[in-house]
Amino acid sequence: MTRPIFVLNGPNLNRLGTREPHIYGTATLADVEALCREALPDRPIDFRQTNHEGQLVEWVQEAIDGADAIVINPAAYSFTSIALLDALKMFPGPIIEVHISNIHRREAHYHRSYVSLAATGVIAGLGPDGYVFALKAAEKILSRR
Amino acid sequence: MTRPIFVLNGPNLNRLGTREPHIYGTATLADVEALCREALPDRPIDFRQTNHEGQLVEWVQEAIDGADAIVINPAAYSFTSIALLDALKMFPGPIIEVHISNIHRREAHYHRSYVSLAATGVIAGLGPDGYVFALKAAEKILSRR
Amino acid sequence: MTRPIFVLNGPNLNRLGTREPHIYGTATLADVEALCREALPDRPIDFRQTNHEGQLVEWVQEAIDGADAIVINPAAYSFTSIALLDALKMFPGPIIEVHISNIHRREAHYHRSYVSLAATGVIAGLGPDGYVFALKAAEKILSRR
Amino acid sequence: MTRPIFVLNGPNLNRLGTREPHIYGTATLADVEALCREALPDRPIDFRQTNHEGQLVEWVQEAIDGADAIVINPAAYSFTSIALLDALKMFPGPIIEVHISNIHRREAHYHRSYVSLAATGVIAGLGPDGYVFALKAAEKILSRR
Amino acid sequence: MTRPIFVLNGPNLNRLGTREPHIYGTATLADVEALCREALPDRPIDFRQTNHEGQLVEWVQEAIDGADAIVINPAAYSFTSIALLDALKMFPGPIIEVHISNIHRREAHYHRSYVSLAATGVIAGLGPDGYVFALKAAEKILSRR
Amino acid sequence: MTRPIFVLNGPNLNRLGTREPHIYGTATLADVEALCREALPDRPIDFRQTNHEGQLVEWVQEAIDGADAIVINPAAYSFTSIALLDALKMFPGPIIEVHISNIHRREAHYHRSYVSLAATGVIAGLGPDGYVFALKAAEKILSRR
Amino acid sequence: MTRPIFVLNGPNLNRLGTREPHIYGTATLADVEALCREALPDRPIDFRQTNHEGQLVEWVQEAIDGADAIVINPAAYSFTSIALLDALKMFPGPIIEVHISNIHRREAHYHRSYVSLAATGVIAGLGPDGYVFALKAAEKILSRR
Amino acid sequence: MTRPIFVLNGPNLNRLGTREPHIYGTATLADVEALCREALPDRPIDFRQTNHEGQLVEWVQEAIDGADAIVINPAAYSFTSIALLDALKMFPGPIIEVHISNIHRREAHYHRSYVSLAATGVIAGLGPDGYVFALKAAEKILSRR
Amino acid sequence: MTRPIFVLNGPNLNRLGTREPHIYGTATLADVEALCREALPDRPIDFRQTNHEGQLVEWVQEAIDGADAIVINPAAYSFTSIALLDALKMFPGPIIEVHISNIHRREAHYHRSYVSLAATGVIAGLGPDGYVFALKAAEKILSRR
Amino acid sequence: MTRPIFVLNGPNLNRLGTREPHIYGTATLADVEALCREALPDRPIDFRQTNHEGQLVEWVQEAIDGADAIVINPAAYSFTSIALLDALKMFPGPIIEVHISNIHRREAHYHRSYVSLAATGVIAGLGPDGYVFALKAAEKILSRR
Amino acid sequence: MTRPIFVLNGPNLNRLGTREPHIYGTATLADVEALCREALPDRPIDFRQTNHEGQLVEWVQEAIDGADAIVINPAAYSFTSIALLDALKMFPGPIIEVHISNIHRREAHYHRSYVSLAATGVIAGLGPDGYVFALKAAEKILSRR
Amino acid sequence: MTRPIFVLNGPNLNRLGTREPHIYGTATLADVEALCREALPDRPIDFRQTNHEGQLVEWVQEAIDGADAIVINPAAYSFTSIALLDALKMFPGPIIEVHISNIHRREAHYHRSYVSLAATGVIAGLGPDGYVFALKAAEKILSRR
Repeated sequence: MTRPIFVLNGPNLNRLGTREPHIYGTATLADVEALCREALPDRPIDFRQTNHEGQLVEWVQEAIDGADAIVINPAAYSFTSIALLDALKMFPGPIIEVHISNIHRREAHYHRSYVSLAATGVIAGLGPDGYVFALKAAEKILSRR
Repeated sequence: MTRPIFVLNGPNLNRLGTREPHIYGTATLADVEALCREALPDRPIDFRQTNHEGQLVEWVQEAIDGADAIVINPAAYSFTSIALLDALKMFPGPIIEVHISNIHRREAHYHRSYVSLAATGVIAGLGPDGYVFALKAAEKILSRR
Repeated sequence: MTRPIFVLNGPNLNRLGTREPHIYGTATLADVEALCREALPDRPIDFRQTNHEGQLVEWVQEAIDGADAIVINPAAYSFTSIALLDALKMFPGPIIEVHISNIHRREAHYHRSYVSLAATGVIAGLGPDGYVFALKAAEKILSRR
Repeated sequence: MTRPIFVLNGPNLNRLGTREPHIYGTATLADVEALCREALPDRPIDFRQTNHEGQLVEWVQEAIDGADAIVINPAAYSFTSIALLDALKMFPGPIIEVHISNIHRREAHYHRSYVSLAATGVIAGLGPDGYVFALKAAEKILSRR
Repeated sequence: MTRPIFVLNGPNLNRLGTREPHIYGTATLADVEALCREALPDRPIDFRQTNHEGQLVEWVQEAIDGADAIVINPAAYSFTSIALLDALKMFPGPIIEVHISNIHRREAHYHRSYVSLAATGVIAGLGPDGYVFALKAAEKILSRR
Repeated sequence: MTRPIFVLNGPNLNRLGTREPHIYGTATLADVEALCREALPDRPIDFRQTNHEGQLVEWVQEAIDGADAIVINPAAYSFTSIALLDALKMFPGPIIEVHISNIHRREAHYHRSYVSLAATGVIAGLGPDGYVFALKAAEKILSRR
Repeated sequence: MTRPIFVLNGPNLNRLGTREPHIYGTATLADVEALCREALPDRPIDFRQTNHEGQLVEWVQEAIDGADAIVINPAAYSFTSIALLDALKMFPGPIIEVHISNIHRREAHYHRSYVSLAATGVIAGLGPDGYVFALKAAEKILSRR
Repeated sequence: MTRPIFVLNGPNLNRLGTREPHIYGTATLADVEALCREALPDRPIDFRQTNHEGQLVEWVQEAIDGADAIVINPAAYSFTSIALLDALKMFPGPIIEVHISNIHRREAHYHRSYVSLAATGVIAGLGPDGYVFALKAAEKILSRR
Repeated sequence: MTRPIFVLNGPNLNRLGTREPHIYGTATLADVEALCREALPDRPIDFRQTNHEGQLVEWVQEAIDGADAIVINPAAYSFTSIALLDALKMFPGPIIEVHISNIHRREAHYHRSYVSLAATGVIAGLGPDGYVFALKAAEKILSRR
Repeated sequence: MTRPIFVLNGPNLNRLGTREPHIYGTATLADVEALCREALPDRPIDFRQTNHEGQLVEWVQEAIDGADAIVINPAAYSFTSIALLDALKMFPGPIIEVHISNIHRREAHYHRSYVSLAATGVIAGLGPDGYVFALKAAEKILSRR
Repeated sequence: MTRPIFVLNGPNLNRLGTREPHIYGTATLADVEALCREALPDRPIDFRQTNHEGQLVEWVQEAIDGADAIVINPAAYSFTSIALLDALKMFPGPIIEVHISNIHRREAHYHRSYVSLAATGVIAGLGPDGYVFALKAAEKILSRR
Repeated sequence: MTRPIFVLNGPNLNRLGTREPHIYGTATLADVEALCREALPDRPIDFRQTNHEGQLVEWVQEAIDGADAIVINPAAYSFTSIALLDALKMFPGPIIEVHISNIHRREAHYHRSYVSLAATGVIAGLGPDGYVFALKAAEKILSRR
């Protein structure tokens, strides 16, 4: 049975397109969602955004029971949330972490992601296309199991 | 007048029993709650869990007005929440911090708990029994006042 | 058109007046709100408090569309919330950060504020009057544009 | 008896208005002095500037005997002078530290002020208005004694 | 066959009751020993104290051959003795580390215990009762084997 | 005119498939090359490997004159070669850094890549597919210019 | 009643005079003892040396009951023994720490003395005369009580 | 020919006796000067104080030509002045550094003295008597040459 | 109009020739001045020395109005003076920093110069010739404008 | 005259063979002693073990008068005992430090040996054979004198 | 079948005998090679030197297919080459790291060897004999397989 | 006999003139070579460039036998090559290190040069003229021998 892939977005991503466009580009989160659905037309995509750390934790817990893979752009919580790391460690399927900008070129507090410690793979700096590659990577890993 | 002891549980503890059982064991949070009620049959136990940092803060504030002691397993928020530390500093009664696993043997980001800076005592590594000892310790401290 | 100034308060400030009064004084948050309204009688003041990081993030986003300036006392989230920093970076108007106590004289974990990286100005240690000066400073900056 | 408030200015502030105006603005130190006198018309203001650390130390010592409050912009000596900190610790009245720019957004060597360890309050990033608020804050604190 | 539990005490604990009583309380080590014997009346308790690092190492070695569990308050050697850590790593049974005060609230050199790296569990800040809980925890772990 | 994309591989990658296969998998570098050619059939791919830092530097210099994009897996030189970083900074086209394993989950000396400071994007932990995504990302960026 | 001053010497000081004479000089520990007795002819001097950390701890404990002051050259244990620090903290009289060489000019591991955290005063680099000054300082402090 | 010993005092010592008397005692600098003259009645004492770093540097230079020894209490400049260290390194006679309080027990910024890197000996925590011991130590060293 | 070049010398350089000659050589500051005048016979040279940080700051300010370039050997203030750095940042012409010895081979506190952050170029370890090269470099840069 | 070589063993080595055999192997200390005697049949071997730091210090002192070389496995005291380092610095003959396991591959607190600062040579990770090589190396160095 | 042992030498070792002889002695690399051949007359020795990091990497790769053991003196690359570490991790046989001098007694940048993280054993400070011991150790380990 | 001066250039300098011209200027390496030859018309100049660390090491070794001085711009290898430092330490003549840009004003990984630890002098930030001054400085040092 094919279960959805959760695409989870963290704080301030609801402002994508207007937020520091010289860093994040002009595509909105709705544009990203459309790209995602197009990327894997045969797989249900559960696309969500929240500004709350606890909510992200709960969606990851929900994914344990109801999703095959997680694509997650945790935004600022990447760098501060051990609760999110703990939740992701429980998830048995592939986890792909996405960052729209190349976080490694930015200020020091954007360098060390807790989420990377639980992720299968990490994609940074490729803009909204990063989501597309993440979904395809997740699908490929699932197809090999 | 005997007021309840609050037993507060932080993020991902609702998954206890299935979460990394080689570290946390197979008892569920309901099992822990039962153990707690058994441990102090004459004292009302207010047993709660949340994945939200702000919720923990508010429950601690509620305890100031309505509880005699706090037993708290803050899970990941131990290591990241100064807001929780600030709230606990206002609480006049005993605070016992519990960790199911021995956090000192784990990765570096689990070593330094902010909550310990406000706690009366700390118990780590004794599994669900840690809650029982914490409640008995709290009761004993209260009985001496 | 004159839009309001948002005065945003972070975790545990709802306990102001009873919380560690040797540090924070005895004025309540309602007293602070009254002071604020008095300080700028001709400017609508939108005065709020929350214990939730995500809520603060969302109020800052709301301010982008509906406020001319932000006065913010982020309390503990100053020191731990990159999400809040990211949100504030999107705000085009003046941002004044206020701390009731002089955080620089306290323990090390109260020294380095993420919020200061996005703030126009910072006021610390002047008690509730800090809010009044912050509002007047914001008004002055707006009047010069 | 009303004694003056000392407004002490550290190194390079005699060049205000021409020094890195994108950071410090175009007001000169004479403009700042005028603003100060206007702010508290009923209080004598002793407004001074020096480029010498030892001079600042001696003016602070002089203030112990002859001033009710100190408003100080120690400029670069904020970050390097323990002698100034030691002198300020002897002053019994309110001390308000002012920085024209938001030092927290600048290079690391401008982040940690020794003077803040002795100051009652700190104001940064509000331009010359910071002096005005500092004087009003000092006056207010004095009026409450 | 029931073998004893060793209760080992490190340097300066022979002065308990008179040593910094605002931190360690007024109970003497003899009082603690009595509490221990009461806590587990059916289990022989081998209660010892030494000020010598080498002696602690040798008692731990002796425990390998002759004890079922170790309850240890290593006092200052917690923070400096890798020799003790190495000895404890050889012990196959449960090890419960006890600290009378909450070491996490004290100066930095009391924060990181080497002994915790080998301990099953850690109890801190509960006073002499910490020994009682430690013995009960050890007994419980043994009863499950 | 369509110029090739350089796919540059650093030290020890000639041993791919036999090198620590629990980390790097069993695909050989020839397999990776085949995958790359397949991924972009209409674009010439210049696929190379070297164990010499200086050689990598020179190939990057060659790319400045003769390639439209660089996909690079610098292996160990990611973490030690400022010479490579300096060379990459001169390249005007897109640079995609690829790591077969998730370097963020490994030992500390694999965490901080100099190459990331010059890269457009970074892909880690997706195995040989990482190269495919990198090539497609590079192509996409080129198509938008 | 005049009780003795304990002059306690740590590890390797029994070799004084032959140990690295370019640093420590050629006077033997017996010479130092003679100097000490001469310095305070009316005060009994209890002069001891040991290479054992535990022994130093016990002598300090003995001093609590039987000495008016402690002059201590803890040698290497200055830098590693928190046990000694803890013991000294219990001593109510003056404690003067002596080092024959100027430890501050030597390698980094000789820079930070734990014993200084409990000492009344510290004398370093004055050779055997340091003991004389230490005894006189102790006597003087006692005479003022 | 007997040349004087310079006794040099750094910033804020002109306030001795009124400055933080719980730390520095109630003796004034004039009292200290009297003690010094008494201590070595046959040796001219050149006793000075300044709040200026450059002045201290010049007095040390003057001492090279006109003094046999230096006793120096550099106060805050101990911790920040490499210029003073450089000057003292040129002085061929004995240099005794004096601190009235035990700087090792105070805040971190009082721990590491540059002056100690050039001093023959260091005395801390013995109050004004420290000057007396320092002068006697200097005299003794000179008598041996 | 040709304005002078200021050659500014910091603390202890008035002792050049006698100060640690194994490091600094035997040329005096007068010798250095002569070398400087010879090096640029057609350019007025304003050659000065001071031991006061504030004086250096003021000479740099004077240079803004009256000099075309600054050659500066800040000696110890290189490593401690942010005030000097702030002053130099205001100077629009070329600034060449000179050190007689190779500071990079000396103790750690001589390694990181604040002045280098504002300097156009830095010359170290070439003895008094360093001044000559600095003047020629300054002249060359001026001639290109 | 041929004097013995001391082979000194530190804490917990009396447990060799049963202590963490996956790290230290199954040979006992008696086996190691036999290997040592076999390795240099013509040289008396004085083979000892202790768990006491002070005992090791004294044996090293004894070796100064009665041994030609020291082979030492200080175990945990390698990393914490400056007392042992100081004692070894007095020994005029060759000192070979031996570790059975490769300490450089273990946890951070096993990385930096104080003893290495005084040792002629260091051998780690070669198991009991390390003692044999150490004895042969010592013999060889002695034969060259 | 007996395959050779590779003895690999890193940068500047071709200058052995003339390079800093007070540290490295006067034996040349040819002398060391002769010692090696003598040490194991029945085992082919493949003795090589290079100044190139990439060459060392390739020789280690070659050893995987053609050698039973590696003795390696990586000289400066010990401290900077993760590429060499990665190559050595692939080698299945014993690896003995040799340093002619005791690197632990030298400057900090010679303290932490990456190669030690992959080595079976490490020998330092025994001069050219270290190679002999390393070869014998390697032979012994091979004979036990 | 006059032997040449080696002018050695490290990685990416073959791209000078086109590489980040806002930092390095527009002169090519051939222009620099011409400047060098002009600067010392009577001294043979051996001018070389390489991108290989090992090559630089070998050229330095070659210089030991065949050059009187070394002028070296090690570019990126300044900051990463201990092998180069080791080679330079063997060279008996003057070594002048040149950097075209002022490395001290750039990112942190360009701040600490290993090469400076072996250099006689260092010149940074003076563009291609730095080579000219370096050659003249080397010539001058040679002429004094």
